[in-house]
Amino acid sequence: MDLDTIAEKVLAGDRRALSRAITLVESSRADHREAAARLIQRLARERRQALRIGLSGTPGVGKSTFIESFGMMLTRDGLKVAVLAVDPSSARSGGSILGDKTRMDRLARAPGAYIRPSPSQTHLGGIARRSREAVAVCEAAGFDVVLIETVGVGQSETVVAEISDLFLLLLAPAGGDELQGVKRGIMEMADMILINKADGELKSAASRTCADYAGALRLLRKRPQDPEGFPKALMVSATEQSGLDAAWGQMQTLAEWRRANGHLEAARSAQARYWFREEVKQGLLAELETEKARSRMASLAEAVARGETTPAIAAGEMLSELHRR
Amino acid sequence: MDLDTIAEKVLAGDRRALSRAITLVESSRADHREAAARLIQRLARERRQALRIGLSGTPGVGKSTFIESFGMMLTRDGLKVAVLAVDPSSARSGGSILGDKTRMDRLARAPGAYIRPSPSQTHLGGIARRSREAVAVCEAAGFDVVLIETVGVGQSETVVAEISDLFLLLLAPAGGDELQGVKRGIMEMADMILINKADGELKSAASRTCADYAGALRLLRKRPQDPEGFPKALMVSATEQSGLDAAWGQMQTLAEWRRANGHLEAARSAQARYWFREEVKQGLLAELETEKARSRMASLAEAVARGETTPAIAAGEMLSELHRR
Repeated sequence: MDLDTIAEKVLAGDRRALSRAITLVESSRADHREAAARLIQRLARERRQALRIGLSGTPGVGKSTFIESFGMMLTRDGLKVAVLAVDPSSARSGGSILGDKTRMDRLARAPGAYIRPSPSQTHLGGIARRSREAVAVCEAAGFDVVLIETVGVGQSETVVAEISDLFLLLLAPAGGDELQGVKRGIMEMADMILINKADGELKSAASRTCADYAGALRLLRKRPQDPEGFPKALMVSATEQSGLDAAWGQMQTLAEWRRANGHLEAARSAQARYWFREEVKQGLLAELETEKARSRMASLAEAVARGETTPAIAAGEMLSELHRR
Repeated sequence: MDLDTIAEKVLAGDRRALSRAITLVESSRADHREAAARLIQRLARERRQALRIGLSGTPGVGKSTFIESFGMMLTRDGLKVAVLAVDPSSARSGGSILGDKTRMDRLARAPGAYIRPSPSQTHLGGIARRSREAVAVCEAAGFDVVLIETVGVGQSETVVAEISDLFLLLLAPAGGDELQGVKRGIMEMADMILINKADGELKSAASRTCADYAGALRLLRKRPQDPEGFPKALMVSATEQSGLDAAWGQMQTLAEWRRANGHLEAARSAQARYWFREEVKQGLLAELETEKARSRMASLAEAVARGETTPAIAAGEMLSELHRR
């Protein structure tokens, strides 16, 4: 298939073309990168938009069960749902958080749903671009909702927040004093905190945790992109499938308010600017990734480590060699 | 004074030359940067070493009182002590954490002590290099101990840890549930946690906090650069000047062990490598700081924000223009 054919088929909602397009944007081969850039530009012309929902949660909070229940509910409402993963750990562990499709067995078989296992990755810069472009492909393919899942490690939350319209934090019920375990920075990114497992024996703990987070969220400065009452904390049970409709209602309320007030478009523009700058930076730093540069960096680093030269002098040498190339 | 004269006078311990040398390394003027790089290389030839002690603590923990009491104790022992500050906030606030010399009035007048107010700074990359080079100048000037102070914000702790032999975290007594307020990453960097204000009414709270942190530190994996029992938590009172000698004894024990086992030198080599790589990266990214590059970046970012082009396509354009320069 040539690029035009892939583009047309993606726009027509063809699943095979969709998967091929995502494989293309995930590739790190130079010719694939270039083709991907052109494909994304072509697809962007249609200006189709899905609601992009970022979802973060550490292992054990019931993230896949939540995504499955939530995704099933949306598809029953007639919405088309794509699920992607941003998983910086998959390169190391060999596995990936969505690699095991059976984890979301029902959703994977549901018409209207598309689950993409996360690729193994080497560095976060690459992950960010590929995830962003995979989201763009799903939007072009006509999905109504794109869920972008991440585990709560390192900078992956920032990446997901920077490609999402709404950012959700999924937590498990906990003792009151564990509240501070969630980094303030993550709290400040969250549009909604969902306390999962509000069922059975954990129900009262979930209720306490929810109240704790609601209190903590009230202490945060109100953000211009939020209507009254947001960000908010809600209880859900993915296994009992309760609270999901209320949570979805709140997501829609927030998204509609932001759309009506121009915040959604403004946020997307700011994200595009951000990613443009990031791409330029990554491109400049890529000069250090050639074999020649790597070996020169290594030998200069050794000289610096032995005290034969200083970091500043050695860096000056390296930079002048790079620019003489 | 020419560079050779400054170098000789710094090596002879001349205070005026020391201050001039630090002013030179703090300057961002291109010709000053170059002269500073040569000065540092000249001074590094002498291979004089001080014990570099990094100290982090949020406002209110009594950091300046601690530095004053601790510094006075060291100078009474006949040691020469320099105090520097890494203060990323000073650019914004207009003030600086060591700008108000009167804060350490006694130490400032003590023979054998040298206090350098922190310069106002614009970005962390610059702060890191200047602080690192100011430490090197103080070492060459014959100081036995260089204390590098920082407030606990953002990445400044990482910067200080990467230019120190020992990294101390100063905390105030607190309720048990506040323990998680200290980021795990900072805990893992600390070689010693000092609970200050272990005096008067706060003494029992300090004792509890100290036990809490001692427990938390025991849960961390033992590091190869540490002897048995480290990292450890200790109580001090800067106002009553108690516990300072014990803390200093532990710092010496740790430093001696690391020196004897080659870890101190290995850490300094690793730091030099790290800063070399950082300098190269900053140098590459500096290509974006020219007026021409800034204005081109701005106009491409606007096109991206308006959706006229994609981040990847626009970044490709910017990069090819930069390399055509």
